[in-house]
Amino acid sequence: MTPTIEQQHPATGEIQLTEVLAALSDPLRLEIVRRLDADGQERTCGSFDLPIAKSTATHHFRVLREAGLIASREEGTKKYNRIRRDDLDRRFPGLLDSILDQVDAQ
Amino acid sequence: MTPTIEQQHPATGEIQLTEVLAALSDPLRLEIVRRLDADGQERTCGSFDLPIAKSTATHHFRVLREAGLIASREEGTKKYNRIRRDDLDRRFPGLLDSILDQVDAQ
Repeated sequence: MTPTIEQQHPATGEIQLTEVLAALSDPLRLEIVRRLDADGQERTCGSFDLPIAKSTATHHFRVLREAGLIASREEGTKKYNRIRRDDLDRRFPGLLDSILDQVDAQ
Repeated sequence: MTPTIEQQHPATGEIQLTEVLAALSDPLRLEIVRRLDADGQERTCGSFDLPIAKSTATHHFRVLREAGLIASREEGTKKYNRIRRDDLDRRFPGLLDSILDQVDAQ
């Protein structure tokens, strides 16, 4: 059975460093995380206006969710996503800032 | 034609953030980099005593080389590898420390 969206979120203590790095190793996923972090609030998948097919976007959001980078909730036909900033900072202090700093500097 | 080992090393300014993250998203490659950084000197591929086939190890070292994380040189039948610490710190200040700190803390 396909896990429900709730089951796709690892607990903070179960977030794995190598999975976080893998999730952020794709330019589009890195950009999604950068924008969610800059916004600091929930955004729907559709609001990103990504230059890719909807099914591909769905895949990328799922990878981010399963790596522990974002939390998603369904409301009606939409998914709302936010960055798990506090969880990530607790699990890997300084890591996300360090990576996003490089993006901003480029 | 297969690129020579020299051609597999990107210049410092060409090292890409997403490629560095992808290279470090594998537990074995992360461990190789951690050990090379801790040692601070050249090591042969064989000296790591990795629990994998030689051809798999060769692949992992090549991924690290092409991402700009390590520099390798051939001498006789052996390859000597070192971490590109200075290049990485110049290109992405603080990034490698931030990632390796998480490994040490785990």
